[in-house]
Amino acid sequence: MLGQIVRSLGRMQQLSNGLKGVRLHQLLSKETHGHLQTSLENTRAISTVSLWPFSSQPRDFSQPNSSWSPEMRKVYDHYNTLCDPDTENGEEKRGPWRKLPSYNRSIKYAAGGIHLSKLIQAKARLFTRNVKEQGATFEYVVFVNKEEKRCVCVFQAGHLLEGAPGHVHGGAIATMIDTVTGTLAGFLSGPIMTANLNIDYRSPMPLGSVVLIHSALDRKERRKTYITCKVSSTDESKLYTEATALFVSIGVGHLFGSRN
Amino acid sequence: MLGQIVRSLGRMQQLSNGLKGVRLHQLLSKETHGHLQTSLENTRAISTVSLWPFSSQPRDFSQPNSSWSPEMRKVYDHYNTLCDPDTENGEEKRGPWRKLPSYNRSIKYAAGGIHLSKLIQAKARLFTRNVKEQGATFEYVVFVNKEEKRCVCVFQAGHLLEGAPGHVHGGAIATMIDTVTGTLAGFLSGPIMTANLNIDYRSPMPLGSVVLIHSALDRKERRKTYITCKVSSTDESKLYTEATALFVSIGVGHLFGSRN
Repeated sequence: MLGQIVRSLGRMQQLSNGLKGVRLHQLLSKETHGHLQTSLENTRAISTVSLWPFSSQPRDFSQPNSSWSPEMRKVYDHYNTLCDPDTENGEEKRGPWRKLPSYNRSIKYAAGGIHLSKLIQAKARLFTRNVKEQGATFEYVVFVNKEEKRCVCVFQAGHLLEGAPGHVHGGAIATMIDTVTGTLAGFLSGPIMTANLNIDYRSPMPLGSVVLIHSALDRKERRKTYITCKVSSTDESKLYTEATALFVSIGVGHLFGSRN
Repeated sequence: MLGQIVRSLGRMQQLSNGLKGVRLHQLLSKETHGHLQTSLENTRAISTVSLWPFSSQPRDFSQPNSSWSPEMRKVYDHYNTLCDPDTENGEEKRGPWRKLPSYNRSIKYAAGGIHLSKLIQAKARLFTRNVKEQGATFEYVVFVNKEEKRCVCVFQAGHLLEGAPGHVHGGAIATMIDTVTGTLAGFLSGPIMTANLNIDYRSPMPLGSVVLIHSALDRKERRKTYITCKVSSTDESKLYTEATALFVSIGVGHLFGSRN
């Protein structure tokens, strides 16, 4: 089971941007995701240990930038609006949609406690966020719907993702499928590892395309979380890729074992 | 079927480094691969049309560089030696192994003939070769064995391929599997597109690992080429990933249609 071990922890940690003082068990709790954003202000006040080891706030790669095409921006705006709270009788009410932030590195930890692993190279960066040039590789944002147990990713494929001339590499598409299905699985099931990806490529995707990646929970069976995934044009008239993914829950022991 | 359309053509074109004067049908012939290297000298003499549109020779990314670990270099040397010709009775005799070169872009073409497509961005680069820093992402070399219809890739996973902290992203592993199985399928069947990848992740792969990716022909059925793949430690004691891949042959019409 792939190098995605502890992924959902990484994602929770991504969510914890600026969360100085969040206790570890909160980060490890399955319920943490739902609370993180709303409790940002509170958690900042509790000060126990810093989980964000960098001096400055990291860049959130899922914010709009000048490389985004009008199509990318339009779809982003649509889902971003769904995340806004409604005001009823002077009270704010939030719907089921949340936008997830995205960073290019996660907090380090190792066996025995909360500290930076010396073995994990300081230079390591998340594969999908490893190129600084905006628009060159993966431009994407993930929106999750907790009630419906699904998520939508808006993805713009940059010119450095080429496979066949003028088209997106199958590995780049697989990378986004792994990323989006893994995000949903981690959101729903806590710490997980990818066990299987089964990908049907239906139609070649031109470089520069903006696509929607819809992902939904199929079922959960004990430690297994099954996710489905479809990659299509933004108007959903053209299907590029379909996939299923299987994730296996891992215990906290996996995270703090002698792996590092 | 994925953005790998025309992939094998791209690979043939990779093989055609410096092949000024090769006629197009040679590049499109299923048999071309086997002949390309041995007929290099001859084909240089025939001058019809230049298929390499760049003024200087491109960098072959599969050459050893200073980022390669001793383990990477050792495995490379082993397979590279298998590619050397034997000398018997003063005559050179070549075995079944060949090392494939690897570039970061392929020749452009479009509907109607051999010319650069204006729609394919000049900045496009092959996904697996899109980062200039040596050792940062994918360091790999593919060796093919024509007789046994299989290939071996030596792959060193750089620090920019991170998924879970300290481990290789599942998408990066999928990318290498797509690359290696697609190379073999294109080598055996001519122009192809990836139709399916089914990947079982057995064990997380630490960043910096050097692994072997063994790929072999399972069977061919009309237009379908089935390939198997295993990713393991270099001593093959540890299995990281197993996969099957399906490729579908495409006609020349696909290559020169109105796609661009």
